[in-house]
Amino acid sequence: MKRIALLGATGSIGQQTLDVIRLHPEQFQLVSMSIGQNIEEAKKIIKEFSPKVVSVLKKEDRDALNLEFDHISFVYDEEGLIEVVSHPDADIVVTAVVGSVGLVPTLEAIKLGKTIALANKETLVTAGHIVMETASKYEVSILPVDSEHSAIYQCLQGEREKAIERIILTASGGSFRDKRREELEGVTVSQALNHPNWSMGAKITIDSATMMNKGLEVIEAHWLFQMPYEKIDVVLHKESIIHSMVEFQDTSVIAQLGTPDMRVPIQYALTYPERMAFPQTKRLNLWEIGTLHFSRMDFERFRCLAFAFEAGKQGGTMPTVLNAANEEAVDAFLKEKLTFLQIEDVLQEALESHTIVQNPCLDTIKEVDSKTRDFVKSLILKRG
Amino acid sequence: MKRIALLGATGSIGQQTLDVIRLHPEQFQLVSMSIGQNIEEAKKIIKEFSPKVVSVLKKEDRDALNLEFDHISFVYDEEGLIEVVSHPDADIVVTAVVGSVGLVPTLEAIKLGKTIALANKETLVTAGHIVMETASKYEVSILPVDSEHSAIYQCLQGEREKAIERIILTASGGSFRDKRREELEGVTVSQALNHPNWSMGAKITIDSATMMNKGLEVIEAHWLFQMPYEKIDVVLHKESIIHSMVEFQDTSVIAQLGTPDMRVPIQYALTYPERMAFPQTKRLNLWEIGTLHFSRMDFERFRCLAFAFEAGKQGGTMPTVLNAANEEAVDAFLKEKLTFLQIEDVLQEALESHTIVQNPCLDTIKEVDSKTRDFVKSLILKRG
Repeated sequence: MKRIALLGATGSIGQQTLDVIRLHPEQFQLVSMSIGQNIEEAKKIIKEFSPKVVSVLKKEDRDALNLEFDHISFVYDEEGLIEVVSHPDADIVVTAVVGSVGLVPTLEAIKLGKTIALANKETLVTAGHIVMETASKYEVSILPVDSEHSAIYQCLQGEREKAIERIILTASGGSFRDKRREELEGVTVSQALNHPNWSMGAKITIDSATMMNKGLEVIEAHWLFQMPYEKIDVVLHKESIIHSMVEFQDTSVIAQLGTPDMRVPIQYALTYPERMAFPQTKRLNLWEIGTLHFSRMDFERFRCLAFAFEAGKQGGTMPTVLNAANEEAVDAFLKEKLTFLQIEDVLQEALESHTIVQNPCLDTIKEVDSKTRDFVKSLILKRG
Repeated sequence: MKRIALLGATGSIGQQTLDVIRLHPEQFQLVSMSIGQNIEEAKKIIKEFSPKVVSVLKKEDRDALNLEFDHISFVYDEEGLIEVVSHPDADIVVTAVVGSVGLVPTLEAIKLGKTIALANKETLVTAGHIVMETASKYEVSILPVDSEHSAIYQCLQGEREKAIERIILTASGGSFRDKRREELEGVTVSQALNHPNWSMGAKITIDSATMMNKGLEVIEAHWLFQMPYEKIDVVLHKESIIHSMVEFQDTSVIAQLGTPDMRVPIQYALTYPERMAFPQTKRLNLWEIGTLHFSRMDFERFRCLAFAFEAGKQGGTMPTVLNAANEEAVDAFLKEKLTFLQIEDVLQEALESHTIVQNPCLDTIKEVDSKTRDFVKSLILKRG
């Protein structure tokens, strides 16, 4: 029995994590969870899974839930998140919150020796140096939940680190993979939200269309696998059947393949180093798919990916700027305050105007994050 | 430094093994070898690698070589093969001889605790039950050299046996992969020898065209990975880029990919569990290949594969009959005494007329092998 603390239970990854728990009630138990503002969904989860601690965003939600449910401890805000991950019964923390809010509770969980199933990109993107150092100090495993990083993690089982030649992330190309750059001028939010392969949240679907999602994954892979950027490649693979690959020194390539079901890598992180039967997904038969396509990544077509490699190589606070500016720009796009291509322009301005701080502490990261958001917001206001 | 005994130095796998040794003179040393009748090639190898023991087929060749080379011990026949594998300096035995002649020396090597790099199909096909039991008793590793089995071996690193759902061998389809069955009537030997992806010996190239090669690999995989036949699948993949795959219980599939260079799996077997840089092959970039194709295996188009699954499931002496009848039939095809499709007919007759012996000892295997060959030869004579 593995006991799970889940940050971000009502989001896309959170819901799929609950589904994995639901599929294996004898193996997994939900000990604690956090949600944002979706109180109705939270009530359903509480009734089904009876977690011991639930954290919400606002004090008034906590007070209201307190009146409705006995025997459950309700908490709120960042302190609440820390209570969720710190629960003494929790063996593993699934960090499925979106955004930089996941960082501090993840570090707390590491310090308490909890295994981390990491689905929160920002944790490694903005503070990879701190997180990996802390994890190494406390001898805690960081298990990736993202299908790409899970794939690489799987490919590396039983292999020696020194034998790795490069990591090859696959990218579906997102909702606009078949459009040329000129065709992106007038695209709408609903077109951008229509991802061909994966069903995901809005932010990550837009990031997938801009290729920033892959960019953030490149930075994550850098930290997770301690891999220099020169040894990370991205290949376009529109079917998303090969989830990612590792090339070794002897030219052998090991790949992980699967149907596009996020519950599989989630379950892998929860059962690692074991695997467990997954009852509810289609088996992968390549003859049914017939053809897999691959093409070279075009960094001029997908400028966000070039920004990410560049920010990653520069290091320090640059990835924090990349991430914060991107979150604000995507939010503005979703609210129709920016066009799709303006996301890139805003990012470029934010990156170019930033003066890098190397090896930043958490406070510096927070400060740079906040300043970047203000900068981008004012940029957008000016444009609007 | 790993010290190598090489059975079958002048054949295709033997030559490529020598090439791997040549590429890494600091890592590998050729201690002993066997050759058949290609004495001129043997002399070149002796001059380049200075092995301590060399076994040839005939006494007169041994006598002639003895006069030419000092400081080298020449031996011959099956006893010679046993001397080659038994050399006290040898750490690993590469069994690259073709045919059932590899069996006895391989068992001897296992009993002496030598690691086996297995490239001889017949060893496992005819005596898998004896070989695997002996290997287990003497705690000896059997490392596959075949690209497909090497791929599976690589995919299984760091995984638990019980988590395996099935093994998926890929098949290029051989020289006639795009021909319908009706079009196979009049095909010639030289057409059959023209394999699209791999450069191999004549026998294995014909086996690849009839799909018997894959059938023998299925039986090998059954023994090597202790996998029931129901959990072994074959998929047509004409590019031969994915060398084979393993599906796990959680629906994840791990695949090994590479350029078609047999020296890579040979080197993997020699360096296992490490990998070593391979200096002389092209790096695999999927975007350069562009497209990978997969299609369902048609057991009526490729009857030899159906025979192999059937013989494997029946077990006992059936795979010995399959193998011996196939060797004779292919030999007759190469000598233009049989047409391509008659290979299948001959196989079917040999299998149908055999009375199975379960759990055969080596003597029974030898006897069935020999009787099968006589039966097939007389069949061919009658036809001719």
